[in-house]
Amino acid sequence: MPPPNIQLDDQGHLKHFLTLEGLSRELLIKILDKTEGFLGVARQAVKKVPLCRGKTVANLFFETSTRTRTTFELAAKRLSADVLTLNIAASSTSKGETLLDTLRNLEAMHVDMFVVRHAESGAAHFIAQHVAPGVSVINAGDGRHSHPTQGMLDMFTIRRHKGDFGRLTVAIVGDILHSRVARSQLAALRTLGAGEVRIIAPRTLLPAEPESLGARVYHDLREGVRDADVVIMLRLQRERMRGAMLPSEHEYFQLFGLTEERLATAKPDAIVMHPGPINRGVEMDSQVADGPRSVILEQVSNGIAVRMAVMALCIGTQNRLSQAKAHD
Amino acid sequence: MPPPNIQLDDQGHLKHFLTLEGLSRELLIKILDKTEGFLGVARQAVKKVPLCRGKTVANLFFETSTRTRTTFELAAKRLSADVLTLNIAASSTSKGETLLDTLRNLEAMHVDMFVVRHAESGAAHFIAQHVAPGVSVINAGDGRHSHPTQGMLDMFTIRRHKGDFGRLTVAIVGDILHSRVARSQLAALRTLGAGEVRIIAPRTLLPAEPESLGARVYHDLREGVRDADVVIMLRLQRERMRGAMLPSEHEYFQLFGLTEERLATAKPDAIVMHPGPINRGVEMDSQVADGPRSVILEQVSNGIAVRMAVMALCIGTQNRLSQAKAHD
Amino acid sequence: MPPPNIQLDDQGHLKHFLTLEGLSRELLIKILDKTEGFLGVARQAVKKVPLCRGKTVANLFFETSTRTRTTFELAAKRLSADVLTLNIAASSTSKGETLLDTLRNLEAMHVDMFVVRHAESGAAHFIAQHVAPGVSVINAGDGRHSHPTQGMLDMFTIRRHKGDFGRLTVAIVGDILHSRVARSQLAALRTLGAGEVRIIAPRTLLPAEPESLGARVYHDLREGVRDADVVIMLRLQRERMRGAMLPSEHEYFQLFGLTEERLATAKPDAIVMHPGPINRGVEMDSQVADGPRSVILEQVSNGIAVRMAVMALCIGTQNRLSQAKAHD
Repeated sequence: MPPPNIQLDDQGHLKHFLTLEGLSRELLIKILDKTEGFLGVARQAVKKVPLCRGKTVANLFFETSTRTRTTFELAAKRLSADVLTLNIAASSTSKGETLLDTLRNLEAMHVDMFVVRHAESGAAHFIAQHVAPGVSVINAGDGRHSHPTQGMLDMFTIRRHKGDFGRLTVAIVGDILHSRVARSQLAALRTLGAGEVRIIAPRTLLPAEPESLGARVYHDLREGVRDADVVIMLRLQRERMRGAMLPSEHEYFQLFGLTEERLATAKPDAIVMHPGPINRGVEMDSQVADGPRSVILEQVSNGIAVRMAVMALCIGTQNRLSQAKAHD
Repeated sequence: MPPPNIQLDDQGHLKHFLTLEGLSRELLIKILDKTEGFLGVARQAVKKVPLCRGKTVANLFFETSTRTRTTFELAAKRLSADVLTLNIAASSTSKGETLLDTLRNLEAMHVDMFVVRHAESGAAHFIAQHVAPGVSVINAGDGRHSHPTQGMLDMFTIRRHKGDFGRLTVAIVGDILHSRVARSQLAALRTLGAGEVRIIAPRTLLPAEPESLGARVYHDLREGVRDADVVIMLRLQRERMRGAMLPSEHEYFQLFGLTEERLATAKPDAIVMHPGPINRGVEMDSQVADGPRSVILEQVSNGIAVRMAVMALCIGTQNRLSQAKAHD
Repeated sequence: MPPPNIQLDDQGHLKHFLTLEGLSRELLIKILDKTEGFLGVARQAVKKVPLCRGKTVANLFFETSTRTRTTFELAAKRLSADVLTLNIAASSTSKGETLLDTLRNLEAMHVDMFVVRHAESGAAHFIAQHVAPGVSVINAGDGRHSHPTQGMLDMFTIRRHKGDFGRLTVAIVGDILHSRVARSQLAALRTLGAGEVRIIAPRTLLPAEPESLGARVYHDLREGVRDADVVIMLRLQRERMRGAMLPSEHEYFQLFGLTEERLATAKPDAIVMHPGPINRGVEMDSQVADGPRSVILEQVSNGIAVRMAVMALCIGTQNRLSQAKAHD
């Protein structure tokens, strides 16, 4: 028997959302289906459902990110939850002890959910392991490890445009080595049974054994996107440029930047994705970013719905667990 | 036929609120009447109406202003909207491209209204020109150009105390040259048909052709406020003092600071206004600021109601437009 | 006849909550009883009551404190109030005039309650003296003077565990001299008629006439906690260490740090309290902090309920006063 997955309760329902690794195809599809329902909420005159009324969601952002924080805040508010935003300076968390004391205090205030973003891989897991029963943890990005809501919003966007994953060729382009987004996408694509997954990157931006990711490796962009249904561009962290890993933004764009001309080898109806914010002229030019094949802004819209779905599923599981406990 | 006003829909209803120039007398009076209704909300035990429930209002403050941001936040919350506050560092907006990407992302999150404050004249117009259909833009102050909600709260305050604009003499005192507040007041007073409008300022703080503002120009305070019904003092930006435009705060007060004694030439029931925050001892002394003719704090109360009125009108127009579109 | 207590209306109902000095035993017990009711709200699936719906609470934190601010924000939100958070730089308040102008403006925006934290003793009183009728002020800590909601949450925690105050021996350990928490605890324990109150501290951390506090003074920890029912550890402000008042954190712990061994002289069922955040290894070791006698996290939970109770009582008084006025 495998060790129990900390993300799930005894009956396999989602309790925390930390990583896409180890989640079943059924569960991922359940999340995608649930997201479909929440997509409609944003189109209502009153963009609000009472599912999490009277719940308290705390945004614990150890790494600042206005954009991601905003999407979680909006998702929580549209579920009618109360939202606390805590900007926690990295300094105050240098001791694990202090982090745990902070958690214990927020639990004592009856916070129901922590949305955690942290520069260190494994931070959200660590918090989920130590959190009180009844409190859910959502990983909003931890180090190079995982960004599961981004992974799921990307899968949702692909499914809406392309349907069945089994027939699809998906190409992921860019800094695979440092990207938690790529790691989550690759895990989801494996689980959902994507037909063919490719990674396209310079050797310096690939992990030591890239084949272990279950993808075919390419070093040439035109070759890598040939006949692809989906082309996912990763964001290039500009701080990498200062190191030895990359020559320059200009040279990167010459080799791995997406243009209409390079995209020509992909399927005619291929879609182009990017987790945002785009570095225009680095990962792609504006013609592609704003072109007819770009679904980048749809990803943002879908991101709210997927976060609502994941939050609602976790809170729903916790509600059932606490009711069952009350009936014991 | 004049070019269509970007602020209005096809039927002349308010869709954005960017400037008072080009708005009809009827529309300004409609806003004033609507404000009258919202004034009562603040006196209820439950200071809340459900008009914007489930709507998302994003405060985009490129220029910091706790006070103005707070009044818009309160107005939105009392309309039951959800409020996002985004403090956008000036740096991240040095490229127009980046600003547009930020807007596109917020639109994709189904934000319904942007409240924009920006140091550059025309910023709110630029955003309104590029915003998606269905999203309203409210100008909360752009450069030296316009501050239309301040202008309307001032008109509302004048109407409450003095009634018909046609019989009134209104004197505006201070730094006309740099003041977006003065520009909005002058536009509104022209449209509402104020009897006589005067501007009183040192030559260095007047625009090149002051007569084009439709006001009589005075350089002497006592003369300028003689028989006035309304005396509006502008805030003096202290940074002007450092330049060559003004001698010193002390000398400014000697010439243009309002005292009870100087106010004696105005009508006995004249009211004194100021957009706040007051520099006591510079624009006026405390005896006047806190005296029986000061309506400065009423202006603040009226500011919430006028912002509620403008937000409710814009959201109402967008609701009608999207319903009409759905029925097509 | 004593001068009227600014905290109470004519009929002795709570209007402001500034200090525990001068409040009657009946009123303190009323707050404790009311808190009992709010404790249950946090255990409901929907942790919200509509008591303050449509009310506006402004957090005025002149001294930063994420933790305390968060508890007040949560308490207000669970009462369904709208919350404004204003971080007021100490600089902008150097002039009393400016502070009053800020207050007048917030009152004009129809704020119903100010929650004030300030480094200067008496700041909340000053604000309550100058605030408009109908607005309540809650002291969230002023200088070395008072922290009444902390005092009451401590009393609530003691009553829940130990019942009748008359039979109890309560020991307060640490920096009595600088502690507004200790001052509030001592006032409450006197009023509630605690059997015996002791203070345990080095001479440098005691006020000039410690006996005036109505407590027995000890300089030895083991002796001081002998047969105690309740041991309250105060937080040591680390900045004191830099001065001449304390030798070092290590030496302080050697003399006044609580360990299981030193706690052995207290009653077997003694409880250990701390206002948080704990400096582990300074005021106490982790074995005590996380041990079976520690009720430190319960204090945090009780803190939300006590703040809800105090806010609800003050808003209730103001509602009654404004209704009575309306009927005049």
